[in-house]
Amino acid sequence: MSASDVPASHPRYLSLLRRERIVCGVERGVTSLHGLIAHGRGEAFDYLIGERTHLFATGAITAAAAALKGARHPVISVNGNACALAAAELVALAEAAGAWLEVNIFTSSPPRELAIRTMPLDAGARDVLMPSQTHAIQHIDHNRKWVHPEGILTADVVCVPLEDGDRCEALVKNGKTVITIDLNPLSRTSRTAQITIVDNLTRCLPLLVQAVREAGTAPVDPVPWDNRKALAEAESVMRQPQATVSGPTAN
Amino acid sequence: MSASDVPASHPRYLSLLRRERIVCGVERGVTSLHGLIAHGRGEAFDYLIGERTHLFATGAITAAAAALKGARHPVISVNGNACALAAAELVALAEAAGAWLEVNIFTSSPPRELAIRTMPLDAGARDVLMPSQTHAIQHIDHNRKWVHPEGILTADVVCVPLEDGDRCEALVKNGKTVITIDLNPLSRTSRTAQITIVDNLTRCLPLLVQAVREAGTAPVDPVPWDNRKALAEAESVMRQPQATVSGPTAN
Repeated sequence: MSASDVPASHPRYLSLLRRERIVCGVERGVTSLHGLIAHGRGEAFDYLIGERTHLFATGAITAAAAALKGARHPVISVNGNACALAAAELVALAEAAGAWLEVNIFTSSPPRELAIRTMPLDAGARDVLMPSQTHAIQHIDHNRKWVHPEGILTADVVCVPLEDGDRCEALVKNGKTVITIDLNPLSRTSRTAQITIVDNLTRCLPLLVQAVREAGTAPVDPVPWDNRKALAEAESVMRQPQATVSGPTAN
Repeated sequence: MSASDVPASHPRYLSLLRRERIVCGVERGVTSLHGLIAHGRGEAFDYLIGERTHLFATGAITAAAAALKGARHPVISVNGNACALAAAELVALAEAAGAWLEVNIFTSSPPRELAIRTMPLDAGARDVLMPSQTHAIQHIDHNRKWVHPEGILTADVVCVPLEDGDRCEALVKNGKTVITIDLNPLSRTSRTAQITIVDNLTRCLPLLVQAVREAGTAPVDPVPWDNRKALAEAESVMRQPQATVSGPTAN
């Protein structure tokens, strides 16, 4: 079923639209097949929080906006899933935060990296940095170590939506402040980042853009943030029976 | 990362192996891209039950084995995901239960139906029925209504692993006893089938084959089964914090 066949009034419309975007991502060489499986995991966790943005997420959004606005050199890392789902919103976030966008994917694939770069450019990004083959972060072995010297290498704050655990951990070990967006509060990524927004990427990005814009140009103080407590709240909500969860099904 | 790169001692070995099988399923034309997303949803629910077979599943397996052995004409429905993940186990189940295998997929695609048929045949199935274009079950509109006249049309017990909600409901309305295997105890499929095994397909199928074999050739009495109670137990386990869940991550 294509999303275009589904009326906007359909109770599963947004979910079907996201699913269609990620499948289109595969068809245009942006998303990997393993990325589709990861998307499905996210869907299940989203069901369990009732597919809405909770206080543990809005708090994290406020902290993330302050971290981005207070950064000397913020960078937003873009992978296949993030790009397929929300290229335009990532461009808006980079614009609002004065941040670079930088492509980084798990398994080396120059054609896929180029396909990913095209989407934010088409959505209006001024430029999108590509990983170099000369500059690497420490504490990680595979393709994800390669970074752009004027991007992630020298960034102080990195926003890495839908990131894998190894790389998130490496970025922290390299002294970066890491913001992630991840629907699984139990994932290594969620537990390793300093600020984890446990929410659907497409639902929270507009809120994050708005929070960054509202911060304006005045100097921004960091917002104290207890990530461990927020993750515990997210897990607690996820494990509570909720009226909103019984509606959507996994089939 | 290919599963063959991962040692069997890797804590995520089985999960990575299943992921690789389903990706291979796409590459050989057996699994749809949407099937990959469904697989990811299943992974998330499996994390939440600690990736092990619980009593609510072993009870359902006992009831399912009795239903298959007591059936006049049992049929096992095979779709892309089930085939990619467990073709050999489905063949073993059909053999043990004296059941037919019948291909059925959501979106009409003769090449994909033929690709699916090949896998159980390669795994030793005597034959695999294909949906006709002349015989249909009632209460369903799309491609899934088409069935084989000597298969699902006249079956009394149908095992439909990883089934979609509409078709599961239609099979029940057509008077079939429906057994399903589904990791989401909240799905319409889980709630509509008479016997739902809430477990990972690859983990429970060998147990189901064993249960059917142990039933032997003696007449089998139906096992009373309260599916609603079992689903409530599965949901309750899923919603409880468990030590076993914190290990695996979604990244």
